Parts: sequence; C-alpha cells; structure tokens
Amino acid sequence: METEKENRTTERKTGVLILGAGRVCQPAAKLLASIGTNSSPQWYKTFLQDDSEELNDVHVIVASLYLKDAEETIEGIPNATAVQLDVQDHVSLFNYISQVEVVISLLPPSCHIIVANACLELKRHLVTASYVDNSVSMLDEKAKDAGITILGEMGLDPGIDHMMAMKMINQAHVRKGKIRSFNSYCGGLPSPAAANNPLAYKFSWNPAGAIRAGRNPATYKSNGKIIHVDGEDLYDSAERLRIPDLPAFALECLPNRNSLVYGDLYGIANEASTIFRGTLRYEGFGEIMGTLARIGLFNTEHHPLLKDGKRPTFRALLLELLKINDDGCLKREEDIAERIFRLGYCKEKLTAVKAAKTIIFLGLNEETEVHVSCQSAFDVSCLRMEERLAYSSTEQDMVLLHHEVEVDFPGDQQHTEKHIATLLEFGKTENGNTITAMALTVGIPAAIGALLILGNKIKTRGVLRPILPEVYVPALDILQAYGFKLIEKTE
Amino acid sequence: METEKENRTTERKTGVLILGAGRVCQPAAKLLASIGTNSSPQWYKTFLQDDSEELNDVHVIVASLYLKDAEETIEGIPNATAVQLDVQDHVSLFNYISQVEVVISLLPPSCHIIVANACLELKRHLVTASYVDNSVSMLDEKAKDAGITILGEMGLDPGIDHMMAMKMINQAHVRKGKIRSFNSYCGGLPSPAAANNPLAYKFSWNPAGAIRAGRNPATYKSNGKIIHVDGEDLYDSAERLRIPDLPAFALECLPNRNSLVYGDLYGIANEASTIFRGTLRYEGFGEIMGTLARIGLFNTEHHPLLKDGKRPTFRALLLELLKINDDGCLKREEDIAERIFRLGYCKEKLTAVKAAKTIIFLGLNEETEVHVSCQSAFDVSCLRMEERLAYSSTEQDMVLLHHEVEVDFPGDQQHTEKHIATLLEFGKTENGNTITAMALTVGIPAAIGALLILGNKIKTRGVLRPILPEVYVPALDILQAYGFKLIEKTE
Repeated sequence: METEKENRTTERKTGVLILGAGRVCQPAAKLLASIGTNSSPQWYKTFLQDDSEELNDVHVIVASLYLKDAEETIEGIPNATAVQLDVQDHVSLFNYISQVEVVISLLPPSCHIIVANACLELKRHLVTASYVDNSVSMLDEKAKDAGITILGEMGLDPGIDHMMAMKMINQAHVRKGKIRSFNSYCGGLPSPAAANNPLAYKFSWNPAGAIRAGRNPATYKSNGKIIHVDGEDLYDSAERLRIPDLPAFALECLPNRNSLVYGDLYGIANEASTIFRGTLRYEGFGEIMGTLARIGLFNTEHHPLLKDGKRPTFRALLLELLKINDDGCLKREEDIAERIFRLGYCKEKLTAVKAAKTIIFLGLNEETEVHVSCQSAFDVSCLRMEERLAYSSTEQDMVLLHHEVEVDFPGDQQHTEKHIATLLEFGKTENGNTITAMALTVGIPAAIGALLILGNKIKTRGVLRPILPEVYVPALDILQAYGFKLIEKTE
Repeated sequence: METEKENRTTERKTGVLILGAGRVCQPAAKLLASIGTNSSPQWYKTFLQDDSEELNDVHVIVASLYLKDAEETIEGIPNATAVQLDVQDHVSLFNYISQVEVVISLLPPSCHIIVANACLELKRHLVTASYVDNSVSMLDEKAKDAGITILGEMGLDPGIDHMMAMKMINQAHVRKGKIRSFNSYCGGLPSPAAANNPLAYKFSWNPAGAIRAGRNPATYKSNGKIIHVDGEDLYDSAERLRIPDLPAFALECLPNRNSLVYGDLYGIANEASTIFRGTLRYEGFGEIMGTLARIGLFNTEHHPLLKDGKRPTFRALLLELLKINDDGCLKREEDIAERIFRLGYCKEKLTAVKAAKTIIFLGLNEETEVHVSCQSAFDVSCLRMEERLAYSSTEQDMVLLHHEVEVDFPGDQQHTEKHIATLLEFGKTENGNTITAMALTVGIPAAIGALLILGNKIKTRGVLRPILPEVYVPALDILQAYGFKLIEKTE
C-alpha cells in the first residue's frame, strides 16, 4: 500500500473512481470530470467552493468488467480514464480505489459490500445509488472509525425521493406540524408520445426484472389501517391517479413493496395515519398485465410445448394457453378478446380488448417459431416485450416523482396544509445520443454525493442516506441548479 | 401592369408572396426560401423535381402591415425580403402580387377575398390555410377562366385533417368499401409536461376567441341519429377519449361545430351512420370551463362592479359572482369549492374542487385591482387566462390529429376494417427560438401547397381544397418526408 499512497500524493488531481460503465455512469462521469475545467458548471462556485479549500480538477476513472464499455462511456469526456476491472480481483480493486478520494459504485447491489470493505481498508469514501442493505448498514461503526462516509441511496428512487420527502417533513416538524399523511409516487416511464403501444410502457433493459417486480407483495397504511396486497393481486390493485397540476398524464399507481419502512426511516411512523409509496404507470397497465398473468403468459415453469428443443409458433403457444385446439380460431383481435373474457381472465370486456391488442402488438399470435432460448411462457413474453417494447433512437423516456404530504398544525391557528413536491424529467438527445431521464436522475445525484464529500459539505462519517439535512439541503440546491425541474408547492 | 410584367420577366427567380407575418409564416417562409439552395430539402428532388421543368430558386416576399414583423420573420432566412403592405392599398397589393407566381395568404379570413380578386386579375395562384368561405368558393369559375388555382384549407385543421381523411376514404372506396363511421379528433394543446395547471390548457394568443369557440353549437351524426348540442351545453358535452396506441394522454373531446358538412365534403353522407368531428382537450377541461361559465366568469355584458371606471379587486368580483357579501369568506380552496357546489354550478364535488383550483391558479381571488380595460367578467377572465395560462419560453405546445374510420366491405369476404390515422407533433426549440407545433402544422402545408403549384403537380384550376388526390397524395408524402409523424394503421 505504501507505493500506492506515494502515487496518490504525487498526483495532484482529485480522483473519483466510478465502478460500472452502464448508462447511469456517463452523465455522472461527465459532470464530475467537468469540475475545475472551462466547462465547470456555474453552480459549482455557489454551492461547493465557498470553503477555504479549493477543489482541484476532478479526474474520473471509469472501471468496467469490459474495457470497451468503459471506453465508450468516457468518449468525449476529458479528464477521464477508462480501465478494465473485475471487483473480485482484490489487487486491481485496491489499486484503483487507492488512487482516488471517492468511489461511486454503480455495480449490482450485491457487489457493494466487496467495494465497501475495500474502501474501509483504504479509508476512501463510497457513494452508491442502491438501497443500503443489512451488510452495508452494519459497517456504520467501522466507517466512523475509519473516518469515511458511505453514502448509499444517492440516486432517484432511492435518492431524490428521500431528499424531497425529508425536506418537506423536516420543515413541517420545525414548524411543530404533524404529518397526517404521506403519499409518494415514482415511475420511470416512456414519455406520453413514446408510450405508443396498448400497454403504454417500454423497457430500456431486460423486462424480466420489471415483470417480476410487478408480482411483489406490498404493504402500506391508509387512514390508520394496514393494507397488505399479495404479489399475485398487485397488478389488479392499480388505482387511477391524477397529479392535480399535471392532469394531462393518464396515470395509475401500484403499491410499491413495504411502505411502512418509510414511516420509521422518515420519523413519521407514530404520527402519519397514511403512509403509501406507489409505482407510477399509465392507466391500463395494471389490468392488462394482470390479465396477461392470468392467461399464463408470465408462468416461469418449463412449458410442455417448449420442452426437448420443440419449437412451436407463438400462436400455437397462445392457443394452448387460451385452451383452444382449433388452429383456425382466434385470428382477429375481437375473437382473442372474447376468449380472454369468456375464460374469466378479466372483469371488464374493455380490459379483454386491451389485453388482446397487447397480445397482437407483441406478436404473441404470430405464426413464427418461438426462439430456441425460451423454456417457459415467461421467457417468451420477456423476449417479445424486449423486442417490441424497446425505445427507438428518437424516443424519450420520462421520470416522474411526486410526493403529497398533509400536515396538521396544532394550536390557536390549528389548520391542515398540503405540501406537494414534484420532479418531472425527460430523456435528452444531444448530438444524436440519447441520455435517458433515468440515467440522469440516478447518475447526477450520485455524482453530487461525491462532490459534496470532496467539497467537505458532508462531514458526517459512517453509513448515511440522503435523509440528513447535511446531504439533502445542498444536494437539492445543486440538482435544481443543474437543471432538474423540482417543483414545490403548498396548498 | 406592363412594367410589372417586364420586371417579372427579367427576374429569373420564382417568387412566392406570403401575406401576414405571424408565427405561421416563419416555417413556411424558411421552407420555401430553402428550395434550390444548398439547404434545399432531400425530398425536394424526389417529390417535386421529376418533371422536365426544373424549379428555380424560390424567392420569398413576406408582407406585413408592420414592416418590423416581416423583418423579424425573415431574420436568418436568405432568399427572403420583408415588405410593408396594407392589403387595402390596391396599388401596393397589385405591385407585390405581380412580382410572384404564387401568393400565400395567412391574413385573417375576411381579407382573403380582396387578395383572391387581385390574384384573379393578375393571374397569380393563391394558397390559404383558412376555410373556403362562400365569397371565395363563388370565384371557382372565374379562377378556371383565369387559369389559376385558389387552394384553400391548406393548413392543419382545415388541411392535414382533410388529407388524412380523404386518403383513407378514397382507398376504402377504391376497394368497394362503404364508410360505416367517421370519427375525427383534433387539438392544439400544451404538451403534457406544459399542461401544468388545473385546466391543463394554455393559450398561445388571446383567449377570447378560444373561450367563445367553446360555446359554439354543434351537430353530428351518431349511429344514424342526428345529435344537436346547444352552445351553452357544449362544455358539458365533453367526453373522455383515449387513443388506443397513445393511452398516456388523458384526453376528452368536445363536438366541433357542424360535422355533417364533412359528410358531403368527403362524399360519405349517404353511407356513414356516424360522422363526428371533435376538438381535443385534456380531461377535466370541459367540466371546469362549464362550471366557470355557470359562475358567470364568461358573461360578456358590462358588469355593474366594473362600471364608470370603478376598479374592484378580483376577489370582490368573484365574491359578487358567488353571491357572497362577507369579505372574510371563501379564502381557502375548499371553501370556494364548497360554495360552487352549493350553488349547483356543477354536479360533482370533485369538479367544484377543480374549478376552485383553477380560480385560485388564475388569481381570480386575489386582492389586487382589476385592470382598467375590463368591463365584463369575460374581460377579466380573458385577461387572467392570457397572463397565467401563457407558455414559458421553454414549454412546448402539441398538435394531435386522430381519425378513426370503420369500413364495411361487402361480398363473399364480408368484413369490417378499422382504419386509423394519427399525427402527433410537438413544438421545436432551435437556437433558443421556439417554433410551435401549431405554426409548423399550419405553415408547412401552406408552403407545400405553393410548391405543388409551382412544380406543376397541381394542374387543376379553380377553387380547390386538399380533398383531391392530386393535392393530398403528394402533400402527405412531402409532409412525411419533411418529418411529420403521420401514422397510419389498419385493425
């Protein structure tokens, strides 16, 4: 380690190592590498440079399992280096971490613990955009002892959602208010124009995870009552939702896992009679997906028709799932809809029509052979969704985050206020390259987390989340200055 | 006229005169002036240059009552000249018209007849984006005799709507189909992100016309039955509408004037049992506007509180309209909503809440003085809507046009097909300048009309609309090549 330390001392630039060269990395790398250069953002001086210590140029090292991915990510970014790195390779990992002040891990969550342990040993700070799991959270004392900050959940959701929520909640508490209800909605969606299919949804990566997430059980509190939704009922629990100041979006929301956890995290468990976190989709998504699920299109067990290398057509599989023997049937949308309705897979006729439209749109009734890799109906559906529900190069994604908090103020002036905070961002196309709203809203907070540590704005050590004012106050200011449209309103 | 003619012969460039230098003019002037230059569009050769005769550079003259407007419009456009022109000034008008081959009139509809008569006399072609009214339509014979084309309704609505409809209808008729139903929807709206107010609407110009249009009576045919909607019931007749392949837009539609006229125009009066044309708005618009109307906010008669230079506050006027004497009342949204509901101005409590939100958003409850120019509640509402429902410089408008046509095919293979055609365009920001979707979708068809005449693609003389294949076939091809997203689909 001695040689490493020497290296670092001779190197005058401040270093940030980003692990993982996916979409999210690029905007983070670009922002960090711009600090101290001519293209350094205006807000940098205002929010990060008022301390005596001036921040040097930031040099960014982007590390990926595949060098090519890292190289592609830093294309056109000065002050950045691409390197090949397998985090399982202890020596390499220690080598690169020792060269920097802060590490940002954008790796799959399960890798964070390896990185965190290395950071502890080398006394380097760590930022992630993932949930702080038990293994990381247990490092709190060690991190304090080592004098490092491990800042997790510094992305969008988790990330900006925490920041916007805690700002409202803390402001209410300072004014002696009690949170009566907390409702939070977040979704990564196609922009309305790009939602050009019956499901009004698109996937920017493999649909398998998203489809599985649609079957997670959920728990929340509504007017004092704990509500539990079983995984298999989740799609059917979708409820119409309108954001009062954005009424043009035809939205619905599905409860998102265990909302009660947020009662403790935000310190409102004992006062809020409603604590709800939901996932946003466009209207119709839940009923269509629920119907497709009941048809069996998301069944993960090996399907007899797909056994032993047999390759039926998509249509043959569909007919089998719809319990039809005659190949001549179900050629038209209305026949498929009628059959779905007859089998009792949905309650409304209109839902059956939407499901039939989706089946046709996905090509699940086509007379072509199912791909050899598919072993279950779930595999088939995922494959078709990946093919047919992909973004074209000119289509925009969208991120919508919306909190509604009701606050009771006691005393003489007893009254209730409704506080609203909304973030709406669209993907951006620059020089023919599209940066997704999702990549921006996850990558930029992570980069800001690193800057706040480098700029000594975050002084607390240990394992943190952006629920601390020390983190969210400057982070929200910078996000706004960066150009994110954060809207706050009191009614 | 002799000298003029000489002038024209010595001038080798082809000339187009655009009358009226509003927003719509700019994209039209830019497109026309690019023809024959280095920035001439790719599609020009394909669609307009296959005739022996090659089109010269197009020189564009933009004429406006105010020279400054014309000059601003042509800023940055080579091959364009700005001139001051009052169309009532016969000599000037004749002077400029005689210098060109085609005139595009973007003036208010009532001015077209003056221009048309001048064009007849000088034997110059004329294109407008306005409805062909009686006075113009009566010039048909004269135009034929003079050998000129007067092409009206060459904008969006009227314009692209005709083209997309007639393409579908003619294709069905060629295949011996009978139109069973014709439904057409069109709206100029804020993009969903820009629809950031309770009304989900914005005005790009004076709201007075748009509010008045919301009180036009309407007639349409639905399943063989003629339906008439009185002007005062129009807002309340709004119906929820979803476009199956764009389900993210929370739309509603209001019947648009007399749809039956289109039965004759499109030659489907005797076969279609449903003929409906609607105006698109976002959901909630109709019920809110209907409620505001019943409150009296759109009353055009002089209001006693606004007489003799008296200047009440917005709030005083609102309280008067809501029949409240106590100034201490109705301070909160819920109180205003409650009062509206109590007075029976809407059927649903939720509608009253939306109306109250709108009133507050518009500042109609503010303690500031009503502007001196306002004499009626209508004036006050228009003023506030113009102020509060304006587009910011970065916000996009949107044009959405959607036709659904059901066609019955008789004979052995008797069946019904559903044909769908959709246009979705957003305003574009180039170098900090926003060109609205409305300006593009009105201005570009008008320019294409001029090009088709110049390129001898439209040979028919007389008064025409783009319902002729000679016009709509090449025009739709060019619109698509220009970059408009016209989507056609058969179900």
